[in-house]
Amino acid sequence: MRILLVGAGGVGDAFAKIAARRSFYELIVVSDYDLSRAERTVAWIEARHGAQDGRFLAERIDASDPDSVAEVAQRHGVTHVMNAVEPKFVPTIFAGALAADANYLDMAMSLSEPHPTNPHEETGIMLGDDQFALSADWEKAGKLALVGMGVEPGLSDVFARYAADHLFSEIDELGTRDGANLVVRDELGNEIFAPSFSIWTTIEECLNPPVVWEKDKGWFTTAPFSEPEVFVFPEGIGPVECVNVEHEEVILMPRWINAKRVTFKYGLGDEFIGILKTLNQLGLDKTEPVRVRSADGPVMVAPRDVVAAGLPDPASLGPRMTGKTCAGVWVTGTGTDGMPREVYLYHVSDNEWTMAEYEAQCVVWQTALNPVIALELLAAGTWSGLGVLGPEAFDAKPYLDLMALPVDQGGYGQPWGFEDRLA
Amino acid sequence: MRILLVGAGGVGDAFAKIAARRSFYELIVVSDYDLSRAERTVAWIEARHGAQDGRFLAERIDASDPDSVAEVAQRHGVTHVMNAVEPKFVPTIFAGALAADANYLDMAMSLSEPHPTNPHEETGIMLGDDQFALSADWEKAGKLALVGMGVEPGLSDVFARYAADHLFSEIDELGTRDGANLVVRDELGNEIFAPSFSIWTTIEECLNPPVVWEKDKGWFTTAPFSEPEVFVFPEGIGPVECVNVEHEEVILMPRWINAKRVTFKYGLGDEFIGILKTLNQLGLDKTEPVRVRSADGPVMVAPRDVVAAGLPDPASLGPRMTGKTCAGVWVTGTGTDGMPREVYLYHVSDNEWTMAEYEAQCVVWQTALNPVIALELLAAGTWSGLGVLGPEAFDAKPYLDLMALPVDQGGYGQPWGFEDRLA
Repeated sequence: MRILLVGAGGVGDAFAKIAARRSFYELIVVSDYDLSRAERTVAWIEARHGAQDGRFLAERIDASDPDSVAEVAQRHGVTHVMNAVEPKFVPTIFAGALAADANYLDMAMSLSEPHPTNPHEETGIMLGDDQFALSADWEKAGKLALVGMGVEPGLSDVFARYAADHLFSEIDELGTRDGANLVVRDELGNEIFAPSFSIWTTIEECLNPPVVWEKDKGWFTTAPFSEPEVFVFPEGIGPVECVNVEHEEVILMPRWINAKRVTFKYGLGDEFIGILKTLNQLGLDKTEPVRVRSADGPVMVAPRDVVAAGLPDPASLGPRMTGKTCAGVWVTGTGTDGMPREVYLYHVSDNEWTMAEYEAQCVVWQTALNPVIALELLAAGTWSGLGVLGPEAFDAKPYLDLMALPVDQGGYGQPWGFEDRLA
Repeated sequence: MRILLVGAGGVGDAFAKIAARRSFYELIVVSDYDLSRAERTVAWIEARHGAQDGRFLAERIDASDPDSVAEVAQRHGVTHVMNAVEPKFVPTIFAGALAADANYLDMAMSLSEPHPTNPHEETGIMLGDDQFALSADWEKAGKLALVGMGVEPGLSDVFARYAADHLFSEIDELGTRDGANLVVRDELGNEIFAPSFSIWTTIEECLNPPVVWEKDKGWFTTAPFSEPEVFVFPEGIGPVECVNVEHEEVILMPRWINAKRVTFKYGLGDEFIGILKTLNQLGLDKTEPVRVRSADGPVMVAPRDVVAAGLPDPASLGPRMTGKTCAGVWVTGTGTDGMPREVYLYHVSDNEWTMAEYEAQCVVWQTALNPVIALELLAAGTWSGLGVLGPEAFDAKPYLDLMALPVDQGGYGQPWGFEDRLA
């Protein structure tokens, strides 16, 4: 297996660092629009783990240009293109990988567009629509595009498949629930507002109409922040206010798993929900440029870019952050014994540990872990498939086993949690 | 009396329209940086009230240049310069008026600067400090600078003086309280967020440390939004959440009126307070430019300018606004009969009426009304003084009488209200 990693930002950097401890591939080409970022990642790996005998290379790439992606992939005989940049680049990397006759993985799917006249009830273009539309091309080429293979989507979809295969005879709801107790402090130790993930992407996710799937209705949308619910997260995180958010799981799970309802709720917490509502109310979430006075005369800037410019870079927050983040799926329905059942399957990532082990903050590290595991299963032939597929199209058990197996036994040493909530 | 009005924005335009119905002056020169704005105001007056035989002239002026202000004033033999622009231009208009040997009025005083190391407890440079420092120059020139002569400060200070002279033997607190029930709707009739006063100035007022005066301590500051209090406003406005805000009354009243405590609380309401806190938390209130990406490469813009650019112009809101705004002073202490007393003296402005009568929204109209009355009293010699003085330095009774007197009896037909809250 020869991998082209597109993007050496927070998640890409963590992907390479995690993969550096594994041996299932021959080559990882770490590429970025900014070559120095790719070189920094490769240098960190060589400093930490010794010379890699050419297993890691740094390259410059333009993710917005399919030809650039295909050229780098072909030059290195790449078998798998790993997309680790913002989802707006999905179409070009997706096309470049196919052109290079390589397989493809991403952690977020092609972007949605709201319904033009009825956005809070009906879907428009959905997440991933543009990718699934090309599934036949991938099948014909004999290649796999494994989409949504981060932590959420990704590990959450694996959990859902596991619940369907091993824990339930009938599923009422597959509810992905994401929450954290992360706190960021300034130099003086005061708590500050600093989102642990790209504010640009967070605004996109949270202010787009959330999508819900029901067996009788299919996919439909609601107003942003709908159906608030306090969900109690494990391992000391505790209760967090969660709301519906547009997310890939709701698109992916119903395609392969039988359930009555599929939702995604994000534990944003009261404060962050209030901030996002205010940004929306004041039009500061907008991506269309507005005319603003400046010392050099009027300029055109997108309000959302101004919001992002004023906040610290999430990748820089690791050393100033404490706490844990939890990703998981809450499943309700009838157990294999015919009795009502309610479980929460989850994985927790602790910032203190990810910083000490990988110099990566926990949210990006947890995201990056999962595509490494998936690639290892694909390299071994444990997972295989053609066309555009989600993580739940594959057998969940070998994935969760490899993830949980201790490092000294050849696994990733990342146990996952299980709560039987009716027990 | 020959008046130079500097600024034909919302308040300046309303000032000219209100003055057009009075006859106490010979000339009003309506001036603006944008000559067409001044011409529009003059044209409206002539269309509504007929030819004014040269009583109104339009001129271009640069409020940031004392020489420009002095030149226009001298050319027209101006006796009184009326400042109706943003407070950042106070120093230059103030200097230009004195250079032209004219008297001066404004509705907001020179800006403050927070204490460099202890901003939430101690004052730094206070509102109006830069003006009071020059009082001797004005006295020597035999001229008056009447500062803070809008509605708040302005009418509020007149109310305070009236209470001290006619209603109380001892005052515990002079508490200016400002509240409204204004609602702005979009074309579809949905309520929208649209501040009825410049968001730039509102942020400045609300995020600067509020100042409080106490007889034993003098002036001191608190953190923004301190001492929240629900104040019940009259004439159907009802209860509104008010918080301490930096305002001129707290600086002016203790200079001329004997009280134990002087405060200003603004009825921002929960929602607006939340929005201002969020803007502050995200650094979007900042006036220092930040580097932001744009289609033309990185640009430098002040986040506060971006916030303002995204909101509708307050002067344009009149037709889409409903409701009333109330300005007044809540006075507690001992009445002239020796008994405990608590009164609220106030003036209410109804947007429906100000739009119908003046095509001006009620907040700017109410602000502009008061300097017209003050100038009429100065023209008549009822009010007179030298140096830098606040409205409470003058007798309040003739002011309130002229304001309340019906139009057909020569007054302004604007009754003021009085609530005896212990009765």
